[in-house]
Amino acid sequence: MSKKYSTSLVGIGALGSRFLSFFQNSKNFELRQIISTKSYKEFQIPNQIKIASLIENLDLKIEVVFICLPDSLIFEALEKIEQLKSQNLTVLCFSGALVPKQKFSFNYGFLHPVNSFPQKSDSHSDLEEIYWNSMGDSKFTRIANLLTQELRGKAFELKNEDLKPLYHSSCVIASNLLTSLLATAEESISKALNEPTQSKLVLKNLVEQSVKNFFESENKNALSGPVKRKDFLTVEKNLTALQNDFPEGIETYKTLSKNLLRILDKNFTQAEKAELLKILGKSDFE
Amino acid sequence: MSKKYSTSLVGIGALGSRFLSFFQNSKNFELRQIISTKSYKEFQIPNQIKIASLIENLDLKIEVVFICLPDSLIFEALEKIEQLKSQNLTVLCFSGALVPKQKFSFNYGFLHPVNSFPQKSDSHSDLEEIYWNSMGDSKFTRIANLLTQELRGKAFELKNEDLKPLYHSSCVIASNLLTSLLATAEESISKALNEPTQSKLVLKNLVEQSVKNFFESENKNALSGPVKRKDFLTVEKNLTALQNDFPEGIETYKTLSKNLLRILDKNFTQAEKAELLKILGKSDFE
Repeated sequence: MSKKYSTSLVGIGALGSRFLSFFQNSKNFELRQIISTKSYKEFQIPNQIKIASLIENLDLKIEVVFICLPDSLIFEALEKIEQLKSQNLTVLCFSGALVPKQKFSFNYGFLHPVNSFPQKSDSHSDLEEIYWNSMGDSKFTRIANLLTQELRGKAFELKNEDLKPLYHSSCVIASNLLTSLLATAEESISKALNEPTQSKLVLKNLVEQSVKNFFESENKNALSGPVKRKDFLTVEKNLTALQNDFPEGIETYKTLSKNLLRILDKNFTQAEKAELLKILGKSDFE
Repeated sequence: MSKKYSTSLVGIGALGSRFLSFFQNSKNFELRQIISTKSYKEFQIPNQIKIASLIENLDLKIEVVFICLPDSLIFEALEKIEQLKSQNLTVLCFSGALVPKQKFSFNYGFLHPVNSFPQKSDSHSDLEEIYWNSMGDSKFTRIANLLTQELRGKAFELKNEDLKPLYHSSCVIASNLLTSLLATAEESISKALNEPTQSKLVLKNLVEQSVKNFFESENKNALSGPVKRKDFLTVEKNLTALQNDFPEGIETYKTLSKNLLRILDKNFTQAEKAELLKILGKSDFE
């Protein structure tokens, strides 16, 4: 059996709680310490694991630290670790937006699981078989690869560090802003249905099929609907309906329809583009 | 065995082609005639089924007509059918946007399968177990129910006919504009990845999990990300990144983030709302 890295877990929120589950049977990492200012009573934690509330109390015999804190606290935590002058330490920070610009005496880097974890969980199944953005020094990368491989995942790199904020924007669009869009569809359909409580049920298949089409086809072939069909009368009716019955949705409809026009650009003549842009209200923000 | 309705299918595009497959084993409908101006050579059509190119050639012994034409041609087709003075006819029109306002001497109405059919298909499996909006007279409703029940689907009604355009807008948002959003995420992440061809692979799990969270939770609980966490610095970094490297995505990011703020309204103080709106550029279209 290969040696396990003695590990400290900092933060037991949505991501940290999943690592608690992962460590229970990990073949590469042995959890020795939890550092958390929050309550951990909801989790079953074996007696031999030490608990501390401050990063200053990091066990100096630890080899690997997992930092699962909000972005705004991560560099502060790294600076406190630097003060401890711990030998031979590697720090895995989990963040979609930050980059390892600052130099420290220890090895470190950033891993980002490309998934959405809105709530804490006592299972780590949604950490398995996913993509991880990895950005850090060579020792960090070696240990990060051990982690992602154990989770049967795939690590990938960006072209350069400066593109991390763009990468993160893309993830926000594909996750949080997707939820924003779906909530808009739900709110608007609920005003039309005879049984508004059915709104999510009615939409579920349509949404799932659209997502499936997107991932299985070229984007242009995944599309249906009035913009694709150049059925501008229906686009106008949609906008009038939103204006009358759900004005909160109108900018979403306009912005994403203009975006469709951009994606389908080559399918449209200049005159058709002009006509659709007129309907979608060029003056609003162009 | 119950009597089957003799049926004519008008239009064999994305939806009509699926009905061709459905009719092969239907217990309630017997396909007798296809009316299409387009080529049908790609489909295997039994010899006993008559083929016509004009609606004026509708077989007068037919009991049920399925109209699977673009919205812009449907009422024109209904007016031509009216000229034929066919007895005891029921017409099922398939449209998400139209309503049965006009009176005809035959029974008719509109059915709308809440699903996305971007391409023709020789299988009707994606017509099964879905929701159908149903709007029409009582004989139409009886025959429409036979169809949706045979497809193990669920028919539902709107509060009133005037809300059909709003209902249709919601479907467009949940399908076409969802694709528009996903294409934006893909385009933007492809500019950051070391291997841009992996863009869809990297995003797939994140998107599917976000959709799953949306349908399984209250919307507020399905959310993660910088707006939810009030991490306004990250929102600013996202916007700067888009401005520098993918300006085509910035209005989508801003519009849907403002929408998130509306959805999460009660979680924010007035000062927090003002701060975020300032970052998201109120002046753009408010």
